[in-house]
Amino acid sequence: MIRHTVAFRLVHPDGSAEETAFLADGRRILTGIPGVEDFVVSRQVSPKSTHRFQFAMSFADQAAYDAYNGHPEHVAFVTTRWMPEVAEFDELDFVALAPAAPDAL
Amino acid sequence: MIRHTVAFRLVHPDGSAEETAFLADGRRILTGIPGVEDFVVSRQVSPKSTHRFQFAMSFADQAAYDAYNGHPEHVAFVTTRWMPEVAEFDELDFVALAPAAPDAL
Repeated sequence: MIRHTVAFRLVHPDGSAEETAFLADGRRILTGIPGVEDFVVSRQVSPKSTHRFQFAMSFADQAAYDAYNGHPEHVAFVTTRWMPEVAEFDELDFVALAPAAPDAL
Repeated sequence: MIRHTVAFRLVHPDGSAEETAFLADGRRILTGIPGVEDFVVSRQVSPKSTHRFQFAMSFADQAAYDAYNGHPEHVAFVTTRWMPEVAEFDELDFVALAPAAPDAL
């Protein structure tokens, strides 16, 4: 399981209709793409970062992730919405590590 | 609920005993601090970032988060382990947003 995350700041003013529309459209469009699981939109609240939001989603494996990346709906979203409306972003992808066995410590 | 995350790269070589010890000690020490919930250590796998790991934990509210930050065990971990062993890091904190009501769109 891979947790794909992207934290971002929009070009739109805080609390604007454009911000609301971007978050709602992102959720609607991206959750419609096969393989996307556990999609969550979050507000980024640490003052140590300039990012304001995060999209996070899980993929069962790298093949599902790759299929999402190349899916026409994802490509269209990136081109028509993400590129013009996102001012800055950082992508991080995670695979959880199980606690080490006691005899490994 | 606040999800506190920090992605980081260690000064230690990949796969080293020092790396293993840092991850195990971080898990052991930080999960022992009151208020820390759902602690997860992950490997950061996106080639778009230089971070290699992430610690993530949840707090019920800001008061629990503040108590963690000021807890002597956390302060000691930051001073004696984090500062000398972490080469770079980024903190992001998240509060999940519920999907907007249909009539809000």
